[in-house]
Amino acid sequence: MIRPPDSCSVPTFVVVGGDAAGMSAASKAKRDDPDLDVVVFEQGEWVSYGACGLPYYIKGEIDSLEDLVSVTPEEFRQERDIDLRTGHEVVDIDPSKRVVTARSDDGAVRQEYDHLLVATGAEAITPPIDGVDHTGVYTLGSMSDGKDLRDYVGRARADGNLQQPDRGPACQFLETCTGPVGIVGGGYIGIEMAEALAANGFEVHLFQRGDRILKQFSEATSETVLDHLADRDVAVYLGAEVETLAGDDRVEAVVTDDVRVPVEMVLVGTGVRPRTALAEDAGVQLGETGAIATDTYRETNLPDVYAAGDCAETEHVVTGEPAYVPLALTANRHGRAIGQTVAGEPTEGGGTAGTAAVKAFEMEAARTGVLNHEEARAVGFEPMTETIEAKSRAGYYPEGGTVQVTLTVDRPSGRVLGGSLVSEYGEGAVYRSHALVGAVTEGITVDELSNYDLAYAPPFNTTWDPVLTAAKVVESER
Amino acid sequence: MIRPPDSCSVPTFVVVGGDAAGMSAASKAKRDDPDLDVVVFEQGEWVSYGACGLPYYIKGEIDSLEDLVSVTPEEFRQERDIDLRTGHEVVDIDPSKRVVTARSDDGAVRQEYDHLLVATGAEAITPPIDGVDHTGVYTLGSMSDGKDLRDYVGRARADGNLQQPDRGPACQFLETCTGPVGIVGGGYIGIEMAEALAANGFEVHLFQRGDRILKQFSEATSETVLDHLADRDVAVYLGAEVETLAGDDRVEAVVTDDVRVPVEMVLVGTGVRPRTALAEDAGVQLGETGAIATDTYRETNLPDVYAAGDCAETEHVVTGEPAYVPLALTANRHGRAIGQTVAGEPTEGGGTAGTAAVKAFEMEAARTGVLNHEEARAVGFEPMTETIEAKSRAGYYPEGGTVQVTLTVDRPSGRVLGGSLVSEYGEGAVYRSHALVGAVTEGITVDELSNYDLAYAPPFNTTWDPVLTAAKVVESER
Repeated sequence: MIRPPDSCSVPTFVVVGGDAAGMSAASKAKRDDPDLDVVVFEQGEWVSYGACGLPYYIKGEIDSLEDLVSVTPEEFRQERDIDLRTGHEVVDIDPSKRVVTARSDDGAVRQEYDHLLVATGAEAITPPIDGVDHTGVYTLGSMSDGKDLRDYVGRARADGNLQQPDRGPACQFLETCTGPVGIVGGGYIGIEMAEALAANGFEVHLFQRGDRILKQFSEATSETVLDHLADRDVAVYLGAEVETLAGDDRVEAVVTDDVRVPVEMVLVGTGVRPRTALAEDAGVQLGETGAIATDTYRETNLPDVYAAGDCAETEHVVTGEPAYVPLALTANRHGRAIGQTVAGEPTEGGGTAGTAAVKAFEMEAARTGVLNHEEARAVGFEPMTETIEAKSRAGYYPEGGTVQVTLTVDRPSGRVLGGSLVSEYGEGAVYRSHALVGAVTEGITVDELSNYDLAYAPPFNTTWDPVLTAAKVVESER
Repeated sequence: MIRPPDSCSVPTFVVVGGDAAGMSAASKAKRDDPDLDVVVFEQGEWVSYGACGLPYYIKGEIDSLEDLVSVTPEEFRQERDIDLRTGHEVVDIDPSKRVVTARSDDGAVRQEYDHLLVATGAEAITPPIDGVDHTGVYTLGSMSDGKDLRDYVGRARADGNLQQPDRGPACQFLETCTGPVGIVGGGYIGIEMAEALAANGFEVHLFQRGDRILKQFSEATSETVLDHLADRDVAVYLGAEVETLAGDDRVEAVVTDDVRVPVEMVLVGTGVRPRTALAEDAGVQLGETGAIATDTYRETNLPDVYAAGDCAETEHVVTGEPAYVPLALTANRHGRAIGQTVAGEPTEGGGTAGTAAVKAFEMEAARTGVLNHEEARAVGFEPMTETIEAKSRAGYYPEGGTVQVTLTVDRPSGRVLGGSLVSEYGEGAVYRSHALVGAVTEGITVDELSNYDLAYAPPFNTTWDPVLTAAKVVESER
């Protein structure tokens, strides 16, 4: 057999993990350099899935899990010419030999690499609560978690609970009612799942350890969403340290130091942690956040070994400090940048502004930048925070509601450090936050922001968009 | 009578014109320096009115003209302590003596000033068309124009036209139908009035001289809105030079070189021109746009004489060149800045990005910056333009539509020069444009924009917001 000389051998890009970061990198690398061999190992059967859509699948607004998949494994293989191996768990990385070892039902395979991307994602944190292993306790991290939860909802609605139409306040909205369930954690997942479960007639009890829900948002935003949850008959317990999920085999009650709430199911949504064991074993360094440290090209301390997505930290555009913000856009963006780098065009892909959005029943909220004063002071800012409320559209326009805008700025310089917005769903809190992302990224002042020529017409805002009104108010008060 | 010595005399701020710029300046000056005497002359009876709301008043979505007034004359006088004189037309400015002369039904008054603001606004252009003075021909510039048009709509719906339910295609949507009317001009006013009239059952014929409607927007946006107007049974005639509005006393037809369309009413919406005669007579210099020239503090060539709002030009944040963009936000912003300056804190108030938004039936569109290649080349850019279409929300999310984004960038540097967006109403084209306003204002590149950490959640966008997708595409193609 004639082999091409070494200098002509085709380089191989190996990706560990087939979700947002991994498949973005694989696709981009192959598209930009079709000569590259691209091999992806994914331990599960699903790739490139929209985990962010799981609450809406459980809610019943999306028909099947397959709908969450943007590109199927077959499409990656056939149309994008990517050697995608599902059901393969990478168990070892040997950076000295540039080889990974993966295990599948068919045994172990060794794969050489020239470039390697670790995109192993994150896993749901299971807090050390008594009874967390009981039947009827769920987390929501993976597609199969989503399927389990949807199955539960379907069973609960179909079974005897239907005979009890007055189990709780949420039930007045539905002909049938299922009842009470507990949610541990008041972050995105907790809030989105409260909506999904209440929409199915469950009486929802949400337990939050801290003194407010959505703690990454401003206090004002948290308060506004909290009021809305109350309007929707979600029982929220703040400062509630869950001690026990009581029951024998099956969970029967959530127990805190204050209350014991009977439940038939519990969802634990207390955050995620980066999956780093594989990389650590190979000598990849973690950063101070506990996620994998990289440079601005997402390269780890090991040459040609990259990390991106929910397993890696990145730099914050406001503080310049490492930050762990495991969200989908950064994973996609960094994956794409790595793909481009591997294909020969070194690309940074940018840091994170910590931007996030959430729909909570009939409200929407977004946040960006730095809102936490301690975090701001740690890098030398003198933060101040103001919140305003303004009409979402011209006062005389027949539609409309209220947008609440919180801005945090550095008092001496006026630099915009962060923002948090909340409005009725459809009144634009999330899209309007687009104005603030640029502001925090570019480091502009609140005075400059107040002079921005933002779009105005009566169906969309008052002459001064709420974002501008907030900027004017903060500027006049600092 | 004992008079205070000159150094203690109270300075007087005189404002000519009581709409957005004038009343913003008056209010801000008085609030920041309550010792200031603030005198406003307004020739009409209405002040601080939302002329942008007139189409929705005519449409019938707003009950009364009073609803468009944000602050009433009595409130300005009583609560804000502003000497507001409605029904007073300023007929002379004598800058050497610092005196203005105003006429009212009670005769002439002379008023000294220390600071003067010319905020005389703009007037609707009546093009030189035969028959433009016929009964049944309207323009929409003032509150009384709005009242006249609403009265017309009411009369037309109440009179014999009700007996003719099949006058045109628009009629299928209403039980009763009135019919055919002509609109000359395909800008904001023309489009908004098409919606207002069609909603009332009129068969609408819209005549546009140029080869597309909404010519300040991108060609792609124009095309998309045009298609939507067709869906809504608005007959649009492009490249239609209206020669005659035929009829004896009352208008009976719109006549171009190609067609003669019978109509019962015509609205002429062919733009506005700045009202500058008063200022010119006083020696105030106009700029190259034909509007009053000012420095960045909105001061004219005459000391302590300011100009703002629809009578004045301003600098464009992208080109640095003078621009005449008579829209509400700039008027408010510059009025406020002048008020602050007059009260002792010199304030610039920023230029214009030429941002604008419009609702057209069930679509929404926004534009910002420089889209016109000629204009871009005139200041040394090498413009290129790309348009993309993307889903407005996650593909699997039950709601959603399409957002079309056009970006114009400087090819060598990648700098974002302008953008234009269009979507179904509620799908966020207008609010999403907020991201681009910062981009064009700060002069960032399309590559930097593509790395922005914009908010994402499935109910609001795909992981890459359409704005980011557009930036990626342009960056890859330049």
